[in-house]
Amino acid sequence: MGIQEAIPVTVAQGSLSLLEQYTAIRRTTEWICEGLTPEDQMVQSMPDASPTKWHLAHTSWFFETFLLKPYLQGYRLFHDDFTFLFNSYYKQLGAHPNRSYRGLFSRPSNEQVRDYRRYVDEHMRQLISVTTDEQVLSLIVTGLNHEQQHQELIITDIKHGLWSNPLKPAWKTPPPSSTAPQPSAQEWLSYNAGLYSIGHDGPEFAFDNETPRHQVFVEKFQIASRPVTNGEYLDFINDGGYRRPELWLSEGWDTVNAQGWQGPLYWICHSERSEEPLPAPQVFTVNGLQPLDLNEPVCHISYYEADAYARWAGCRLPTEAEWEIAAADQPIAGNFLESGRFHPCGADSSCGADTPVRGFFGNVWQWTSSPYTAYPGFKPVEGALGEYNGKFMCNQFVLRGGSCATPQSHIRATYRNFFPAHARWQFMGLRLAK
Amino acid sequence: MGIQEAIPVTVAQGSLSLLEQYTAIRRTTEWICEGLTPEDQMVQSMPDASPTKWHLAHTSWFFETFLLKPYLQGYRLFHDDFTFLFNSYYKQLGAHPNRSYRGLFSRPSNEQVRDYRRYVDEHMRQLISVTTDEQVLSLIVTGLNHEQQHQELIITDIKHGLWSNPLKPAWKTPPPSSTAPQPSAQEWLSYNAGLYSIGHDGPEFAFDNETPRHQVFVEKFQIASRPVTNGEYLDFINDGGYRRPELWLSEGWDTVNAQGWQGPLYWICHSERSEEPLPAPQVFTVNGLQPLDLNEPVCHISYYEADAYARWAGCRLPTEAEWEIAAADQPIAGNFLESGRFHPCGADSSCGADTPVRGFFGNVWQWTSSPYTAYPGFKPVEGALGEYNGKFMCNQFVLRGGSCATPQSHIRATYRNFFPAHARWQFMGLRLAK
Amino acid sequence: MGIQEAIPVTVAQGSLSLLEQYTAIRRTTEWICEGLTPEDQMVQSMPDASPTKWHLAHTSWFFETFLLKPYLQGYRLFHDDFTFLFNSYYKQLGAHPNRSYRGLFSRPSNEQVRDYRRYVDEHMRQLISVTTDEQVLSLIVTGLNHEQQHQELIITDIKHGLWSNPLKPAWKTPPPSSTAPQPSAQEWLSYNAGLYSIGHDGPEFAFDNETPRHQVFVEKFQIASRPVTNGEYLDFINDGGYRRPELWLSEGWDTVNAQGWQGPLYWICHSERSEEPLPAPQVFTVNGLQPLDLNEPVCHISYYEADAYARWAGCRLPTEAEWEIAAADQPIAGNFLESGRFHPCGADSSCGADTPVRGFFGNVWQWTSSPYTAYPGFKPVEGALGEYNGKFMCNQFVLRGGSCATPQSHIRATYRNFFPAHARWQFMGLRLAK
Amino acid sequence: MGIQEAIPVTVAQGSLSLLEQYTAIRRTTEWICEGLTPEDQMVQSMPDASPTKWHLAHTSWFFETFLLKPYLQGYRLFHDDFTFLFNSYYKQLGAHPNRSYRGLFSRPSNEQVRDYRRYVDEHMRQLISVTTDEQVLSLIVTGLNHEQQHQELIITDIKHGLWSNPLKPAWKTPPPSSTAPQPSAQEWLSYNAGLYSIGHDGPEFAFDNETPRHQVFVEKFQIASRPVTNGEYLDFINDGGYRRPELWLSEGWDTVNAQGWQGPLYWICHSERSEEPLPAPQVFTVNGLQPLDLNEPVCHISYYEADAYARWAGCRLPTEAEWEIAAADQPIAGNFLESGRFHPCGADSSCGADTPVRGFFGNVWQWTSSPYTAYPGFKPVEGALGEYNGKFMCNQFVLRGGSCATPQSHIRATYRNFFPAHARWQFMGLRLAK
Repeated sequence: MGIQEAIPVTVAQGSLSLLEQYTAIRRTTEWICEGLTPEDQMVQSMPDASPTKWHLAHTSWFFETFLLKPYLQGYRLFHDDFTFLFNSYYKQLGAHPNRSYRGLFSRPSNEQVRDYRRYVDEHMRQLISVTTDEQVLSLIVTGLNHEQQHQELIITDIKHGLWSNPLKPAWKTPPPSSTAPQPSAQEWLSYNAGLYSIGHDGPEFAFDNETPRHQVFVEKFQIASRPVTNGEYLDFINDGGYRRPELWLSEGWDTVNAQGWQGPLYWICHSERSEEPLPAPQVFTVNGLQPLDLNEPVCHISYYEADAYARWAGCRLPTEAEWEIAAADQPIAGNFLESGRFHPCGADSSCGADTPVRGFFGNVWQWTSSPYTAYPGFKPVEGALGEYNGKFMCNQFVLRGGSCATPQSHIRATYRNFFPAHARWQFMGLRLAK
Repeated sequence: MGIQEAIPVTVAQGSLSLLEQYTAIRRTTEWICEGLTPEDQMVQSMPDASPTKWHLAHTSWFFETFLLKPYLQGYRLFHDDFTFLFNSYYKQLGAHPNRSYRGLFSRPSNEQVRDYRRYVDEHMRQLISVTTDEQVLSLIVTGLNHEQQHQELIITDIKHGLWSNPLKPAWKTPPPSSTAPQPSAQEWLSYNAGLYSIGHDGPEFAFDNETPRHQVFVEKFQIASRPVTNGEYLDFINDGGYRRPELWLSEGWDTVNAQGWQGPLYWICHSERSEEPLPAPQVFTVNGLQPLDLNEPVCHISYYEADAYARWAGCRLPTEAEWEIAAADQPIAGNFLESGRFHPCGADSSCGADTPVRGFFGNVWQWTSSPYTAYPGFKPVEGALGEYNGKFMCNQFVLRGGSCATPQSHIRATYRNFFPAHARWQFMGLRLAK
Repeated sequence: MGIQEAIPVTVAQGSLSLLEQYTAIRRTTEWICEGLTPEDQMVQSMPDASPTKWHLAHTSWFFETFLLKPYLQGYRLFHDDFTFLFNSYYKQLGAHPNRSYRGLFSRPSNEQVRDYRRYVDEHMRQLISVTTDEQVLSLIVTGLNHEQQHQELIITDIKHGLWSNPLKPAWKTPPPSSTAPQPSAQEWLSYNAGLYSIGHDGPEFAFDNETPRHQVFVEKFQIASRPVTNGEYLDFINDGGYRRPELWLSEGWDTVNAQGWQGPLYWICHSERSEEPLPAPQVFTVNGLQPLDLNEPVCHISYYEADAYARWAGCRLPTEAEWEIAAADQPIAGNFLESGRFHPCGADSSCGADTPVRGFFGNVWQWTSSPYTAYPGFKPVEGALGEYNGKFMCNQFVLRGGSCATPQSHIRATYRNFFPAHARWQFMGLRLAK
Repeated sequence: MGIQEAIPVTVAQGSLSLLEQYTAIRRTTEWICEGLTPEDQMVQSMPDASPTKWHLAHTSWFFETFLLKPYLQGYRLFHDDFTFLFNSYYKQLGAHPNRSYRGLFSRPSNEQVRDYRRYVDEHMRQLISVTTDEQVLSLIVTGLNHEQQHQELIITDIKHGLWSNPLKPAWKTPPPSSTAPQPSAQEWLSYNAGLYSIGHDGPEFAFDNETPRHQVFVEKFQIASRPVTNGEYLDFINDGGYRRPELWLSEGWDTVNAQGWQGPLYWICHSERSEEPLPAPQVFTVNGLQPLDLNEPVCHISYYEADAYARWAGCRLPTEAEWEIAAADQPIAGNFLESGRFHPCGADSSCGADTPVRGFFGNVWQWTSSPYTAYPGFKPVEGALGEYNGKFMCNQFVLRGGSCATPQSHIRATYRNFFPAHARWQFMGLRLAK
């Protein structure tokens, strides 16, 4: 039985109690890690990525730090040093290790980290069963959403880690059929100029950076009916896209040259150990090296590349407001973490669903042209959790829509993901606008 | 006669012909350099800064490349190699030297560069006298605005260069009196929510990045009646501002620690050669080291510092739309390049003018919270000049209002300056909003 | 039963057959790794260090590449990719991975690497039982000495890896008593000027860099009767040794300041997470943090520090010729890898032996003032193995005598170890001369 | 009149008084700088190189600091800040500027530095005329030798500075004829094994690092009758010398690849601004770009390249003892600074002299295989001047013989120059041994 066939849990639906949600989400994290050895779970291939084991520990640290320690009477820390060891970046909680050293922590072992998770789970179940405090309940939901964010990072980080191994090992066995259906022709969805409202409002969970809901004036615009495909992106490459400075932002051009980029991350055209070109481009996936499927949405490109492609195509990237306006009435359907594929399927398919989708959700995050900034009237959460989002509002761009590594229950039209312009290791693609 | 007393020229006014404008602006550039030796004019103290001599040559190269070569019949290049040597970054015009090597060009000499300027001036006068082509006339105006931008950079770059000299030499003699008047109390100017128009429209010159004029919806806001002063900023420092991570953006905090920042650039509290603190803070100016004047607007701070100060003060930085709305009806009066001071005066004074000003223009550029992006419908200029502004729309923040090193005729309410968040060597300050 | 009590094998003695030697040495490597988890064995804390697992694989690769592949008929590679993956630096054998990526190889797993070792062992036993070829026999002995070198590196590299973990974990349980006996007073051993012979000659194994034996003229000299102790080194520190530039080589002084060195590697005087000094210096060992024992020889110092200490003491470091002359008639007795302590004992003790030793062998490698160069008439081995030693004869210094991590059967008076002047992670100490 | 024709002064001969020597040497420094503008004299193209103006000031600082201040009664410093500003690296004299900032010092001007020189000269003449103190006289001679060392550095540093200018400007006009005569065939000079004495002894000036004279035992050896030529080196390049790792030291191979070296420094085979190869190799000289003369000794190569060439040729580099033994009875004749060529002439010619020379002296420094270490019994000079030589005895190799930029009166058979293995900007070549 391939892991990919199992869709393990349906989480965070209205019909589930908080305890059921907690259990399902925590279990999903461990389901993701199936197939990874304790050694795999130690790999840190770059400072931006973290070892799987660290993610497993840090998400438990989050519950311990923000919930068990302050709110569960008589709670004793699992291990005194973990307070320091698994703090990611919360300065208000004291010192934390340099993030580039996370891959050196052979101790605690993977088994100890699993014990830590079990210990935290046991106490969290206690807390959930007794608390009625609105603030505590809200923090638990935050912790679950935090866990879901790290589910995605586990996948993207270990993918980069295994890619860094000359053996290019597969972590998952490939799904039965891997060829994506032919995408539909790209069409333009048109919107009128006017005042629109974007951002989150209401009782459901959202991160502070999605609030407050506010009005924006938007000129009339058109947005593409589906993301750009590998085949379309290959045309850009073959047209000299990576050798024509006039297509690039100044920083992008410098990066292309400094890094020697010739295509998206994970595309390979020649062996590391010989000079010969491969007969056809390959792409590294969680299933190891696979032939590049031209019908899939292009993925693992930086903002610089998305922007250059759009300029080459005579278009531009949408702003985050435009994207949200267009996505607001789309169903949250597509290819998510739950499929267990951890890889995009066709640019407007939902991996076997009957109805084609417009690809607004799932498959690949879509770069917008919007720098990540505070919405008017934005107020960070009080206390150390205020460091969650607000302090990163500088030199990052917003991505929208979620990916094949995002839990379906985690995403929504107002969701704002953000990464620096050079980042490529998330499942990042693009959708055109004009 | 002190250089500072001379206000040499009134430029770009409606009453001046294009030839008069050309002559006045080019002469102003040379007036700025008075007091600098040929050796001074070679200094390049960091890759971001350029030598004075390079600025003098590059601005002439601009006229030669974009006007004389294509439009003046029979024009012969002053020197074949200069096409390469003084190209700053226009990739479409071919290769250019690495910008960090500009300080190594002892040849051509300062004298040859002056000859180059004279040669270009002579031919530009010919071109101006014969051309009636609207496009050519428009390009000439662009060249003059380009020259004015480099006037400001000459001042900021040489200031940094002289600062890098342990002798901390003065370049200008100090003005008769250097104590700024007590600023007025800070008040809040209030604006209603609504649809506003920002950006440039009309026949006067503006850069492409100021267009098109467009509507924005803005929530109600308040903006301070004057910039923050040195005295106020010193309170922030004394309150531990540089040691409290919760006040800073994540990147800002990393920068503060990596660079060891303890205050604005050019403030010094102890000698380079001894451990003893100075009795009072000093500040490096074009007149050498001077006592820090608490009534002046704070200057030479990064975006990170401006943002942290605002958070400490319980406020925020204005967006560029808010700033422009507030500035739109303010007179363009204040302390500009023409005063010859090249240093801020009081936070709401106009350096001797009768009427106090609100400091929207002149003295110090004001950081806004707006990343530098394209306005809706933005189209870069065609051809190589399209590289002027658009390709830098990434990882920069917008500053507004001009400074004591900006020509008065160059600035306007819609003008968008932009620098990376860590930059400090321009005359950069801040104004609060909430 | 503590691992430290077991002295597992007596290797490479005249009485052992080559097969017995092979078996004993290979088994010793695995004995060293006892107590390390598969996760521990992946840690690479700096590019200079390698993961334990890599050492285990690379030493097998060495036998496979230089013996099985060319000399065992019908031999099939264990895994095609390992030829590439576990090549350290032999350019003549083709490409090899960047050494700083060795810590990323979660695959092959520790278990697969153990299989690889077993597979190689099985075939090596076949080869040993059939071959009579002198060259092959000689290569096997080289392979065993190579394995012994990596035994030492396994210890020093994992020690550095565990040190990089904020938990400062112990890998071995401490020996019953850890206090070293009071060292004898330092005396001076005197030698006359004259022509001496140094270097290796004869049928026993030695590395090419120890040959040929040759004459050197040496002025009269004195050499200390024992290495410098922690207590003596602490006097140097307390006398401002790390703050007085006149005591240091220029490069050494730059390094001290750039790295912020205040004492030997692994000494700690305050916690990572608080500002408070510890009541007494501690030192990190394979048994975790321990109180600093002033009677032990000082260890984990760079050439720069050894040189500065000697200058402070009014002495100098011995040349390698002086050291070898003095050591030539000393017994090869002391504290070696076989003790299982993996830590120095008293400066002139043999860890429990009745007779005091002069500490020429075991405990700590001793820096000499001799740069690592070719002996007159030096010829590297033919073929790829010629890259073993010769190509590193640049910017390294010679160390002599072996350490507590060196196999006793591996060391001899003519043995030349070499490291760059800044290296500290080997068990490096010093002995004075004048 | 070409500068090159003038041989200005004959210095430091027995027949000259100390005052005459002082005057001649100081005048020579200024003669070297003829043809350099004040702007040229500010160029610092890499941290290892210093601006001409800095050399002019620092050599005067040396006399002021070590002679005038302590020994001339009533002496007043020329400028208080110069004590700090022009200290190169003497830690015992207090702080000094970071050496990479020397190129930023537009102030003091070139003219002020000339005033400084005149002021120091005037007072040095007073001191010379009154002192009879042996120590003072000895220090003056040291100061003159220090000045001569900086004469060579002025030439090599400004050559590198002008090379960094895309215009590749000439500083001197070329000599009438620049083609070197055909070198004689390379022969081998043979020496027997035995005890030899090397190093300096006697009343003439020598640096501390040349002492004490001492015995060395040397095996029989052969040394080439002349340095390697450009033509011979080109054979090495054409035989793939820069692409064959087996010829290189490990660090050398890393450097070749990291730096992209394909030949000696200053050789160019294609334009910076186009991809086309030049019809024939050119070489940058003080006379600008010139055709590469195959009969000249190869120059501007690193130790790595010298070592790789020797290995390719089936030879090795001589040790410094071998070189000194062979050179001891050679006349100190050849192509020195005094010729004003500042460029090598034929490999065994003396630039027009009747008798061919063996090229031991002048033309190019010759890399030896000897790391720069202390001679047995070496004692640095007392006081701050002890930092002159001893503290650099780490990671440098010895070069012997002087070059076309070395004053003839400055060089001798025992003279030890030293540079790191990667350095190329001095006039460095090689002579084979075996």
